[in-house]
Formats: sequence, C-alpha cells, structure tokens
Amino acid sequence: MSRYWSELAASLVPYVPGEQPKDKKYIKLNTNENPYPPSPAVLEALRGAAGGDLRLYPDPSSTALTETIAEYYRLPPASVFVGNGSDEILAFAFAALFRTSEPVYYPDITYSFYPVYASLYGLESVKVPLTDDFDVPIESFYNVDGGIIIPNPNAPTSKYVALEGIRSILEHNPDRVVVVDEAYIDFGGESAVKLIHDFPNLLVVQTLSKSRSLAGLRVGFALGHPDLIDGLNRVKNSFNSYTIDRLASAGAVAALKDEIYFQQCCRNVIATRERIAGQLRELGFDVPESKANFLFIAHPDKPAEELFRKLRDKGILVRYFNKPRIDNRLRVSIGTDEEMDAFVAALRELTVAAAAGKDSN
Amino acid sequence: MSRYWSELAASLVPYVPGEQPKDKKYIKLNTNENPYPPSPAVLEALRGAAGGDLRLYPDPSSTALTETIAEYYRLPPASVFVGNGSDEILAFAFAALFRTSEPVYYPDITYSFYPVYASLYGLESVKVPLTDDFDVPIESFYNVDGGIIIPNPNAPTSKYVALEGIRSILEHNPDRVVVVDEAYIDFGGESAVKLIHDFPNLLVVQTLSKSRSLAGLRVGFALGHPDLIDGLNRVKNSFNSYTIDRLASAGAVAALKDEIYFQQCCRNVIATRERIAGQLRELGFDVPESKANFLFIAHPDKPAEELFRKLRDKGILVRYFNKPRIDNRLRVSIGTDEEMDAFVAALRELTVAAAAGKDSN
Repeated sequence: MSRYWSELAASLVPYVPGEQPKDKKYIKLNTNENPYPPSPAVLEALRGAAGGDLRLYPDPSSTALTETIAEYYRLPPASVFVGNGSDEILAFAFAALFRTSEPVYYPDITYSFYPVYASLYGLESVKVPLTDDFDVPIESFYNVDGGIIIPNPNAPTSKYVALEGIRSILEHNPDRVVVVDEAYIDFGGESAVKLIHDFPNLLVVQTLSKSRSLAGLRVGFALGHPDLIDGLNRVKNSFNSYTIDRLASAGAVAALKDEIYFQQCCRNVIATRERIAGQLRELGFDVPESKANFLFIAHPDKPAEELFRKLRDKGILVRYFNKPRIDNRLRVSIGTDEEMDAFVAALRELTVAAAAGKDSN
Repeated sequence: MSRYWSELAASLVPYVPGEQPKDKKYIKLNTNENPYPPSPAVLEALRGAAGGDLRLYPDPSSTALTETIAEYYRLPPASVFVGNGSDEILAFAFAALFRTSEPVYYPDITYSFYPVYASLYGLESVKVPLTDDFDVPIESFYNVDGGIIIPNPNAPTSKYVALEGIRSILEHNPDRVVVVDEAYIDFGGESAVKLIHDFPNLLVVQTLSKSRSLAGLRVGFALGHPDLIDGLNRVKNSFNSYTIDRLASAGAVAALKDEIYFQQCCRNVIATRERIAGQLRELGFDVPESKANFLFIAHPDKPAEELFRKLRDKGILVRYFNKPRIDNRLRVSIGTDEEMDAFVAALRELTVAAAAGKDSN
C-alpha cells in the first residue's frame, strides 16, 4: 500500500495466473495450454512478418485479422472484435456492456478473473451456485436484473451447457447482455456463434490460446451484434489504439487458415482426454464429463492438495484451487499421450499404492 | 448508441490515431514512426522466437524484458514495468496513480489521448495553457491539487523542458504523482530517469515505438519507485495477466541490447531534422526547436489545412489537428533524407510558387 496509489489501485485484489515455473522442467498440466505446437503455417507467417515494416504502427482496426475471422464464422466484419488475448476482451466487455447500476451474474465456481474484472469496473457480483454435479442451473439465470457471463465449457469444472440452455438464458434476458466465454469450445462443444443472428444481446468470446496452440501470441476475439462490438471498440479506443501487434495479427490469420491442422490437434486432445478420463475412473477418481482440454478430478480418499504437492515433487504440475466446494479437486490440462501416461502412472502410485498400504495396515 | 452499452461506453469519446492508409503508397510523415527498420538483431531474435513454445503462455511478469530494461537504466527490476505499448502503460497510470477525488493536470496542447484516459477513469482534467511559444509554464505546475502528466518532449509541439524544470515540478508536488511521458526523449532530450532515486513520486514512461523502430511490436515501459510500479501491476493484473507476448518480449530484449544501431538511428534522425528545419525556415516557415522526431510548423501565408490537403494530393501524409491554437500548424515526422527532400520540394512548390503567383496578380 503506497500513499501514491489511487483508491482503485488500493482496492484491487489482482488475479493470480497458474505458475510458469523456471526452476526446472516440468510436465506442465497447470494452465490448459495445448500440448501441440502451432501450425507450421503460423510459424512461417511469423517469420515472414519479422521484417522492416515493424517500424510502422499496426492497423489500429486489425482489418486483415477481423476479416479473416468474419469469413471463418460467416459473419460481417462489423460483428468481430479482436484483442490482446481473450482476457483483455473480457475486461473490455465488463467495462462496455455491464452497467455499474446493476450486478453481474456468473456461476459461483468459474474463471476466477470474473470477480477481479467486476472489482476493476466497480460492479457488484452475484455468484449463482452450480449444482452439486457442477452443472450450470439454467433457470437461475432467467430474468435476472443485470448482465450475465457464463463460460462454456466452464472452467475449472470442464462441464458444458448444451446450446439450448444458452438459448434459453438469452431468451429470458432480452434487455441484458449475455457473454458466453468459449475459450474451450473447440474441444467438443457447440458454439453459440450460430445464435448471434437471433440475439442482439449475445457476445461470444473465443481465444487462439487453447485450440490453436497460441497462448504465447496473445490473440482473442469476440463475436456479436455490431452494436456490442461498437461498445467494445469505444472502450478499446479509449485505452489503447493498437492492442494487436503486427506479428500477432499475421500469426493469427495464418492459424485461422490452417483448418486441417486445427481439426487434427483438437481431435488428438479429445482422444487423449477420453482415454485418460477412463483410466482415472478406473483408479477410483471422480471425473465429470469434460468438453474442454482439461479434467477436473477428485479422489475419494486422497486429498487434492496432497496429490498436488506430491505430483509437483514428481515433476508434474497441475492446478489446485484452495476455494470452497472445489478444494478437494485438481484441474489437469490434457498434455501429449506420453505426458498423460506419466501423469496416470504417478497418480496410480500415489493412490493405489497408498490404498494397498492402507489395506495392509 | 446502443441500449446494451454501459454508462461508461456511452460517455466515452475515443482517441483517433493518425491514419494508416491502405489506398496507395504515401510518404508517411503522419504518425512519428522511425524511417529506419528495427535492428537486424531484433529481426533475428523474432525469427528465432517463432517456434513451438508459442503454445505456452508468456511469463506474466515478463522477467527477461524487465531485467534487460533494469540493467540498461541501472535500476532494480522492481523499478520497471512493461506494457503493450506505452499507451497501455499510460492508461494503467491514470487508473493506478491518479485519484478520482482530484483533477489531473496536463498542458492544454499535448498528446490528445490524455483527456480520453481521464474520461475512461472518471478523472477531471485541468488543462494548463502553454505559453505563446508552446513552452510548458513550469511554475503553473507548482503545488497543484492533483496528479500531473507532462510529455517531454511534448507532442505535437516538439518542445522540450530541461531537466531542471522537471525536477522543480517534482519538488513542488511531493504528495502527488508526476508522470513524465518520454516517448520522444531519445532524439536529443535528457531523460528524467536520473531523478528517480530522488523522487518517489516520479514515473517515467518510454516506448520502443519511436527511437527503436518498433511501433509494430507494441512494447513500452515505465520506470519509477517500486511502490509506483506495484500500483501499475495491481491494475495490470486485474485487467490482463499476459500483456506482452513471447515475440514482443524477445524482440524488445534484442532491441535494448543493440546500442550501436540504436544510437546510429537516433543520430540520423536528429541530423535530418536539423537540416530540414533549416530549409523550412528558409521557406518562411515558423519551426520551433524540436527535440523529437517531428517538426511542428506553420507558414505565415498558407493555411495549414490547405497545405495538409495539397500534400496529401501529392502523396505526402502529415498530421493536421483541427484544434484551438494549433489549427494553423502541421506536425511532420522526420522520414529518411530522401522522403524529407521530397517533402521540402513539395512545400516549396506550394508556398514559393504560390507567393510568386500572388506577386504577379
């Protein structure tokens, strides 16, 4: 606390991302990164863009990238907004589309950046409890007196709301904006993008960080009615004219154009996820059905925090949240088959061996 | 105006950057870009970083870049903050270091993003009039009842406040933060960085966009007491964990390590600026002494707006601001010698030829 801070700076409780360790080489299953590298076409585009033109500002409207995304999703460019990662876009959405005179509604167990954004922009939060099975209670979001943000699939639960559920929430809140945060949608869910034509109050947010293997490049995008996109642009253009650098734009365009590579990566992640989910269930873990690139697991006997620490000692990083209702679970990103085999083997040792030990005592 | 916008989105008047034309090839002297390409070492570093690791998030603290800047300026890393261009850092500074209960003071003629930031964060602005010669009236900034931001050199005036003036403002405002925006400091001014040890209320903001030829990469940094840097980090980490992507970080580190190239570029720009300023004065233009990579010129007879339009017709872009006190001036970035020769030739045609025509009527 410094006497030079504003009231705002003093009041904030910033978000803490999963660790990016530098002390040694880990099997890194803690930040939901894609285990596969970006498309070779992306790397080639990036190398090609690393030239003398970097002396020039980027296009402040990121026209090339916006048009590529528009074409991909068959929407007009005016329905597309791009940002420096989807986190930046979510921040702009909280500022531009949620009113300080009303609360913002989101699940009690969800992306822990939401309450941070709410606090940054002076919004009250209403945390709607998930069911005991971590399902989003659709009807609890009907006719609420404020904005709504729902991640689909949800993180860290990995659970997915079918499109009819999203449609129903939109229908029951015609006067409020509903943001659907689809960071993980490409791993088996059905995107709400197809509802944009019917609902001027729907903003869909996606990212290239997960399914396109570009967490290190920082590109996200939002899709919605041009009025909502306009609102985002008003805030963005009052904050930073040039949020997307020339390289990020070139790489993102190339990523969206390599559909075959993208589909193959997603299929690989999904196949590994299903295989590993089965093995973990055999080990006695509770593993909710995941439509994301991670699993959210609990063991009946072994406390999650202990597993988290012991996995770390074995060189395997997963994410543990010391929070109500989920403090006995681990969020485990889907790595390569080899990494996940090592992970399962480690858990087998920590649980079956422990159980055997318990039996013999 | 949409019924889905927040009060904030509806209230904003966003910043409008200089145009990045796509219709044809211009001599582009309108956005203060560096006419020379980035260092070859930067391009090599970028190509090297365009690899499989882009699947991983960047270091949220940008440790490598922060430490490189710290070493360059002989400051502790805790005195360094990095951002997605200095515009983003300025926005964070307005949010973290200026109090909504007090106004923020800045020159009446200055970077036109300042009032936009003030509006974004709910701050009242007090615009302190520059002198008739566009000098910053140092004593008008003594003992004010709010934060202060001064660009040095100032834009679009190109004029510079000697370090003693900055020191004096700091001494007379020990309880308020003074932000010195040094986007153009490397073109002949003396940086306030050396005052950081004496003044815990000083934040110096710089960018790699101008003197390091990296406008397209989006990297800026701030230097100051660790308490101020902490404040910026609190806001940044409540907004976006990863503002600097892996490529931007790699390129920026390489740029800061190629001192010889950097110094040579700055010397070239300064030499061209002085040569062109002399030629413009010979043509009858008023050209204030510039310590930036641009000139702020006025002709006694030819209206600036007319010159702006006619230059554009000739394929030369400069910046014209239709604002009080400066609506008869042009801001002209320093290009290559060849570009500037074409610019002077065009102005000679538009002014001397015009004068000859006038004489003969």
